[in-house]
This record gives sequence, C-alpha cells and structure tokens, in this order.
Amino acid sequence: MSSSDGKKRTRWTTEARRGQLLQLGAQLFAERPYDEVQVTEVADLAEVSRGLLYHYFPTKQDFAIAITQTACGHAFAETQPDPDRPAAEQVREVLDAYLRFAGENEHGFRAMHRGLIADAEVRAIRQRDLADHERRVLALLSPGAEPPAALRTAVRGWLAFVIAVVLDWLEHRTISRDEAVEVCVRALLRGVVADR
Amino acid sequence: MSSSDGKKRTRWTTEARRGQLLQLGAQLFAERPYDEVQVTEVADLAEVSRGLLYHYFPTKQDFAIAITQTACGHAFAETQPDPDRPAAEQVREVLDAYLRFAGENEHGFRAMHRGLIADAEVRAIRQRDLADHERRVLALLSPGAEPPAALRTAVRGWLAFVIAVVLDWLEHRTISRDEAVEVCVRALLRGVVADR
Repeated sequence: MSSSDGKKRTRWTTEARRGQLLQLGAQLFAERPYDEVQVTEVADLAEVSRGLLYHYFPTKQDFAIAITQTACGHAFAETQPDPDRPAAEQVREVLDAYLRFAGENEHGFRAMHRGLIADAEVRAIRQRDLADHERRVLALLSPGAEPPAALRTAVRGWLAFVIAVVLDWLEHRTISRDEAVEVCVRALLRGVVADR
Repeated sequence: MSSSDGKKRTRWTTEARRGQLLQLGAQLFAERPYDEVQVTEVADLAEVSRGLLYHYFPTKQDFAIAITQTACGHAFAETQPDPDRPAAEQVREVLDAYLRFAGENEHGFRAMHRGLIADAEVRAIRQRDLADHERRVLALLSPGAEPPAALRTAVRGWLAFVIAVVLDWLEHRTISRDEAVEVCVRALLRGVVADR
C-alpha cells in the first residue's frame, strides 16, 4: 500500500518490528563499544519514533539483554544434535549447525561477544548459556557419568575456543566455514577427549 | 618508625606505592563489575588521600589500563621459552610459567579478563597482548614459514582456551595447576597441531 506522501509503507506486526529493531541494534553493537552506541540511532535507522523504540526496549540495557537472549537462545535451540547418532557425529552436527547459525546471525553473534560484553547482565546471560552448552557437550563425552574435573575444565576451555574461532572466521574469512568446523571438531575430539 | 599517633607507618617508594595501589585495584576489579567499583575505595583501602591516588591515576580508565598493562606485560616477559629446547618442551615450559604467573597474580589476571573487560581500551590492550602470544606460539609451531590460515585461527582459539582454563582453575581450584597445564598442552599439541 502507499501512503499519501507517496512512500511505500510496510505494515509491521509487533514481532516483526521487534525483530527489526533487534537486528539493527545488533549491527551497531557488533561494530562499536557499548558506551559509544546511542539506542536512538536504532530509531533513526528503523525510521521509527524514539517513543516506539522505548515502548519495545525501555532502557539501553533492556535492549542489550534482548539482543543477547535472542542470539543465545536461538543458537542453542537450533543446534540440537540427533541423539541416535554416534557422539563424534553429533559433535560435528552441532558445530556445523552452530556455525551456520552464527554466519546467518553474524551481527547478533558478534554483538554478544564484542560490544555488549561491557554490560554485566549480558555477561551473566552469556555465562548461563555457556553452562547449557557445557552440559550438552559433557553429556555427549561422558554419558551417564559424573565427568572428571579436568574434563569439565577442558570443555569450558573448548567453548571459549569455539567462540574465538567463530569470531575470527566471521571477521577475517580467511578460512571457510567447513574449515572452521574442522578446527573445532579436532580440538574437542583430539585435544580434549583423546586418551582419557 | 612510629609516628606521633603510635601507628606504624611505612615509607613507600613511588614504585612500591604504585604497585600497592595497582594490587588493591586489581582485587576490587577481579570481584566486581567495572561500573560498581569506585576508585576512591582503593584510596580508602590503601589509607591514602584521594589526591595521592589521582596523582598516580588521574581517571578510573587510567587505573584500569595500568592494571591491565602490568598484568599483560609481566606475564609475557616472565614466560619466555628457552629457544634451544624442542618445541613441545617449550610449549610446556611457557604454559607452566604462565600458570605460575597467573596464580601469583590472581587478582590482576582475573581483573583483566573479568571486571575490566567492560572498558574498550582494556580490550584493545588485551587484543594486542593476545597477538604477541599468537606470534610466539606460531613461531614455535611453524618456524620460519608463513603459517596456514587454519593454524592461525586454531591458535587464536587455543589462546582463548588457555584463558578460560586458567580462570576456571583460579576460581574453582577443582584441578591442580599441573593438571591445568596438561589440559592446555594437550589441547595445543593434539587438538591444534596434530596431523598437519
């Protein structure tokens, strides 16, 4: 439909509008430090009033938290492995899905691990998300048993490894997604698990 | 010597005083988010005037930067490997020295990777420090040659792995320092290097 000033206008559902604002916010926080980003820039980019933006996200921190929760929650949900396959295949499957998700949600992923990390609540959400991933990986590597303390520590290290590899891949693109997946699979299956 | 009010007073050299303030600051930033720490708390803990504190560190950011530079610079300098030994031994030697340093400078290490990470300049110093470590590790693994892109990415991942393992070791102490060193050595020599 066209409005009277001749510009095409889109009708947004609440969810679509919220998604659009989160997407634009992620883009800004992926590139610049938290303190330097003004949320009103998002309103300008989205061509909405500041009042509408504040309706969705009353404070900058609410905005940062929503971007982080969206990125974390979706990534975890979209990378469920198939429990009927061998553990090593599940590892590759999860990583493949995880890197595909990160590539498709590059701004949110980078924002969460870069600009937004300045916020303590964002760091807390990220920590809880890492704990979910840790439980999933440990259940794969050490099914039905209490994992040894050194394995638990190594898996925590490996999760940090994966995030660093994904950020490096997204930012420099010097290797392909498949190569990045291989780097992460090898680090877990040879560097963390081997010979235990 | 004793002052007139009977309290024992210590004469501080400039360097010793600066070191004391950095040590106390690291302690605060290791435990609490950046925004919640007031640098004047350091003056109170050190029993010095705020004016003296501002003489050494005019702003909170100057303070954060000094803590980070001290932790990074000393860690790198104190973990030089012996170039006459085989690469695998040098790796173990560096890690052993690095974890010893982190254990002895626990507050500074945790502050740099936890509370102070909220500051963009601290993150930049940390990035440059990681680049130094990366060059050193790549020179060990791929001497005299341009390292393949996937190896470079994997080493970046591994540096994040080491930091996460050291933080986990310092915070939970569920494994010994030697076990933490082994976890890191194995991740590099089997998970990153193997079969290249």
